[in-house]
Amino acid sequence: MPGEYEPQEKIWMIWPERPDNWRDGAKPAQKAYADVARAISAFEPVTMLVSAAQYANARAQLPDEVRVVEMSTDDAWCRDCGPTFLTNDKGAVRAVDWEFNAWGGLVDGCYFPWANDNAVARKICEIEGVDSYHTPGFVLEGGSIHVDGEGTLLTTEMCLLSAGRNPHMTKGEIEEQLKEYLNVDKVIWLKDGIDPGETNGHIDDVACFVRPGEVACIWTDDPADPFYEPARAACAALSEATDAKGRRLKVHKLCLPKKPVTLGADFAIDSVEGSLPRREGDVCIASYMNFLIVNGGVIVPQYGDENDSLALAQVQAMFPDRKAVGVYTREIVYGGGNIHCITQQQVK
Amino acid sequence: MPGEYEPQEKIWMIWPERPDNWRDGAKPAQKAYADVARAISAFEPVTMLVSAAQYANARAQLPDEVRVVEMSTDDAWCRDCGPTFLTNDKGAVRAVDWEFNAWGGLVDGCYFPWANDNAVARKICEIEGVDSYHTPGFVLEGGSIHVDGEGTLLTTEMCLLSAGRNPHMTKGEIEEQLKEYLNVDKVIWLKDGIDPGETNGHIDDVACFVRPGEVACIWTDDPADPFYEPARAACAALSEATDAKGRRLKVHKLCLPKKPVTLGADFAIDSVEGSLPRREGDVCIASYMNFLIVNGGVIVPQYGDENDSLALAQVQAMFPDRKAVGVYTREIVYGGGNIHCITQQQVK
Repeated sequence: MPGEYEPQEKIWMIWPERPDNWRDGAKPAQKAYADVARAISAFEPVTMLVSAAQYANARAQLPDEVRVVEMSTDDAWCRDCGPTFLTNDKGAVRAVDWEFNAWGGLVDGCYFPWANDNAVARKICEIEGVDSYHTPGFVLEGGSIHVDGEGTLLTTEMCLLSAGRNPHMTKGEIEEQLKEYLNVDKVIWLKDGIDPGETNGHIDDVACFVRPGEVACIWTDDPADPFYEPARAACAALSEATDAKGRRLKVHKLCLPKKPVTLGADFAIDSVEGSLPRREGDVCIASYMNFLIVNGGVIVPQYGDENDSLALAQVQAMFPDRKAVGVYTREIVYGGGNIHCITQQQVK
Repeated sequence: MPGEYEPQEKIWMIWPERPDNWRDGAKPAQKAYADVARAISAFEPVTMLVSAAQYANARAQLPDEVRVVEMSTDDAWCRDCGPTFLTNDKGAVRAVDWEFNAWGGLVDGCYFPWANDNAVARKICEIEGVDSYHTPGFVLEGGSIHVDGEGTLLTTEMCLLSAGRNPHMTKGEIEEQLKEYLNVDKVIWLKDGIDPGETNGHIDDVACFVRPGEVACIWTDDPADPFYEPARAACAALSEATDAKGRRLKVHKLCLPKKPVTLGADFAIDSVEGSLPRREGDVCIASYMNFLIVNGGVIVPQYGDENDSLALAQVQAMFPDRKAVGVYTREIVYGGGNIHCITQQQVK
């Protein structure tokens, strides 16, 4: 599995629409998704997957250069239900089609059913003519892993050892699956992510590889910040970790929003049985870490927060050869994720 | 618009499923469609469009080399709702996305609604990254036209002048649309097709170009044959016609099934309001003319009729440089068409 900073063919996204997760019939979120797609399109092609019902609307809202393809899904998180693209030793593109269960299945998943989402990876690979390997009996989301492309994988125990993923497997057995499917030699396990309730602590809100040997990690000096403890713990653990090549990791600190993002009184969604309720006052998982690396660029969440420009500058400093571009995506974090969660890169 | 015998990139098809048109829950038709896809795949790639509900089943029934892509449709006639692929003067592929109204709209169409079908051409073009031109206000199906790729188009008055297509336009105005969209100089109008009730006489059951200057046309010596009169009339008209280059056409005669194909007592379909009823004893539009020309091959309908091998030999004689391959498709003609009707070629 190449690192996210290696050459990409295109980015896949899924158009948001379900009214029990996205407020106001998903109209504000659709605008934010379109803004993200437009920003990525300046660097590389984007394909947006859209339901039949929303096809014409998505086509109208999106710029011409975004390819719109019909597909049934259960929500709009292509990082997690999309394929993990790989290259084999001959340079051919392949993909892992992980078993997907909506972040915890019947134990603590976010919605039911999730059958459409579980078919997304395979359908994408069919469209592209890419062979894929399904992993029945092994549940994983793309957002729970990061790799450096040189044999190291980064993840959290909170997610991969959660009761809703693979409770029948030991930590060692899970590590073996990761090593086998992704051809990695070393797994760096952080203990916790910052959202026990939704993704059970996906790594992509906490830390990522900037290049081999270097990681970014969220950081705050404010003990009142809801993510203060897991952020400090993650940074500390990463500072002591070594990668597959035996390198001590360089850790770049990335700020958090100054003011936590919470759901307001005007957060109006449908009430649906089987979906995780979202209520006024809920703390959103607003992290600048949820950026996406693309060819020549980095697409960075902006929340309308005092720290927006600081975060953008910090990311820009980590990637001197790429252009850091901020996109206002507060509406996306209301739905439970951000730019990295809603995208999936296809390697070249 | 290149002739069908010019180089093709791939063939598009749509998986049948609607139980008010295909008997026995479409299971026999699905087998026949899979057989057609398999036969074409020996010559060039096939993409099968499939609803979300039938995706897993289609994937299981089709050979690995057929690409399966999710798409909502109203039925399974890609010739008629799919794009008409063109090349422009720079050799780039383009397409016409004709307005589609289920063969006659509210006047005498075969089903209602048809909105999904009307979006198929555009969605195919999006997937392929091909620019398309929609024709709002001008209704046409791909099965109602054939071209020689050298400026000549062949069609029927029965279809193009029907009350359910473009009654607001004169014959001359319709001809202008064809000339403009397809870059043809001459339209050869046959009077009638052989199915006034369904497609209103599509040309692709009656005649086609074999190569520039040569056509095939259905023929029978049996005055009791239900298609005796239109077949003789079409052959006579074609024998007297000249093409855009002023050539007198050479006409190859193609036999009809010896025994008309009719719906049996065991033809069990759902009764649905808005769909054309299909009843025991109905004569099916069984024509060997509904073959598909592919790269290096011709895929020819077979009905389990005494004339099957004669038809195959006649087609083989028309195309000495291609391999004529018969596929048993009686189940497809029960649904209202055959191999040409269910396919659409994408030009290279």
